[in-house]
Amino acid sequence: MRYAIIGTGAIGGFYGGKLAHAGKEVHFLLHSDYEYVKQHGFQVDSCDGSFHLDAPNVYNNTADMPQVNVVIVALKTTQNHLLAQLLPPLLHKDTLVLLIQNGIGPEPELQKQFPNLYLAAGLAFICSAKTEPGRVNHQCYGSINIGNYSCSDKTRFDALINDFVEADIKVAEIEYHEARWKKAVWNMPFNGMTVVMNAQTNQLLANPATMKLIRRQMLEVIGAAQALGVKNIDESFADKMIQNTLEMTPYSPSMKLDYDFHRPMEVEYLYTRAIAEAHKVCYSMPCLEMLEAQLKFLSK
Amino acid sequence: MRYAIIGTGAIGGFYGGKLAHAGKEVHFLLHSDYEYVKQHGFQVDSCDGSFHLDAPNVYNNTADMPQVNVVIVALKTTQNHLLAQLLPPLLHKDTLVLLIQNGIGPEPELQKQFPNLYLAAGLAFICSAKTEPGRVNHQCYGSINIGNYSCSDKTRFDALINDFVEADIKVAEIEYHEARWKKAVWNMPFNGMTVVMNAQTNQLLANPATMKLIRRQMLEVIGAAQALGVKNIDESFADKMIQNTLEMTPYSPSMKLDYDFHRPMEVEYLYTRAIAEAHKVCYSMPCLEMLEAQLKFLSK
Repeated sequence: MRYAIIGTGAIGGFYGGKLAHAGKEVHFLLHSDYEYVKQHGFQVDSCDGSFHLDAPNVYNNTADMPQVNVVIVALKTTQNHLLAQLLPPLLHKDTLVLLIQNGIGPEPELQKQFPNLYLAAGLAFICSAKTEPGRVNHQCYGSINIGNYSCSDKTRFDALINDFVEADIKVAEIEYHEARWKKAVWNMPFNGMTVVMNAQTNQLLANPATMKLIRRQMLEVIGAAQALGVKNIDESFADKMIQNTLEMTPYSPSMKLDYDFHRPMEVEYLYTRAIAEAHKVCYSMPCLEMLEAQLKFLSK
Repeated sequence: MRYAIIGTGAIGGFYGGKLAHAGKEVHFLLHSDYEYVKQHGFQVDSCDGSFHLDAPNVYNNTADMPQVNVVIVALKTTQNHLLAQLLPPLLHKDTLVLLIQNGIGPEPELQKQFPNLYLAAGLAFICSAKTEPGRVNHQCYGSINIGNYSCSDKTRFDALINDFVEADIKVAEIEYHEARWKKAVWNMPFNGMTVVMNAQTNQLLANPATMKLIRRQMLEVIGAAQALGVKNIDESFADKMIQNTLEMTPYSPSMKLDYDFHRPMEVEYLYTRAIAEAHKVCYSMPCLEMLEAQLKFLSK
């Protein structure tokens, strides 16, 4: 199995790095730190054991990359308009594309442009950040839920799961919608609220008013998921997510970092599309719709 | 009729100033600018015609003030705990106390402490600010709705209304709950949202996302009022309030000024008590409950 990683940041650098470190053939697309990594390799500082890739296969253009069996897309969804150009050089007729991205709906959107592509969703429960060129800091967690969206080749899909296991990544296959909506239970409250309140996760949970609000927002997501027919998700999942967050070190989610560093925020896939899906079944999420409006105001 | 003004700021200074300017006997309680006003008098810069009170009756302690027929309380509700001490020297057996204050519920709260006191609510639709010692800047509007809470002496109440008319103040008597909840339709969205989004009214209305959110929040207040049996309030009132606000110069509501100048915010009366009243009839205002939580976080 040959892999391409599109977006070698906190997520692509970690999971792609783990695969390469385990001896898989991995080809990395880099952007700003291409030259640095070409010269110095790639470092993963990890709570599970750090490692260094001395001479990874790096590229600054997908046209120079080989066709692969699996493409892992680890870009922010704000860059998904680039995929129409980035993907074709990497694809042969049965390439599987795994979107390790937050939010609701990136697979159906991409499928419109590539109707025959095998697609899967990867939802990473991980605290990691790219701290400097060629270096990822993995603070804690790291498991990934993978949901099969449109890969009818079960052998290919299972081989991907197997490679993740061999690379010592905690991986679980779960139903596609369940995978995306479960992640949204954490993402929708914490990403937006840390931006609007200019606070880290621990501060929001330390204040009784915002702690209660975060839980209410989580229940809105769970309600939407249930209305959409998603299984295996109920109120207890909110408590589990809050408990996990309380046990984390103070954390700034990716949207908070994007806002602080004046990068575009993923409002579209994290909020707007999730809200639109819920509306299709007449379910509204008033507090998260308010948060979306506040984020749109801040994005102006 | 003899008047006492408790709190000679943007509101008390304007309405008390208008009454004194019209020749009524008015006694002003001042705090930080007592010495200044004693020496220099009090200036009202007003879009309706500016004027100066050369030698107003000023005090820095209610114990030195005479008993009066009407006390106008124009303190922020965050200072209402002071009323138990401030009021008694001013009261005889049929003094009417008019609370020109925002929020829901200050009269029942004060009535608990003074069971026989005549109480009324004043809801001011005004853009004004105390800009420097002894000086109020009245930018626009200025009408006041007065609601009778517990004044069984109709002659006294009517005399108050009449004095306001004679002082060239646009005054209307409306039902008590209608008066308080109508003002809340404007107050609850704009006070909190300008704080949380760090913006003025015009900026919130210029962005389609927050414009829509403000209207949604107004409809939550109107829904709560209707659930509580308040009459003469429906959806059209939201559109009227938005239209009025669009016609105003960019404005920072009092809570925004309080937050910017590190003064306590009126979260209790503007949000917490309004939300509690609505909950009594099983009505919830999710977006405003979220706003309350965000304000409590910022108040910490």
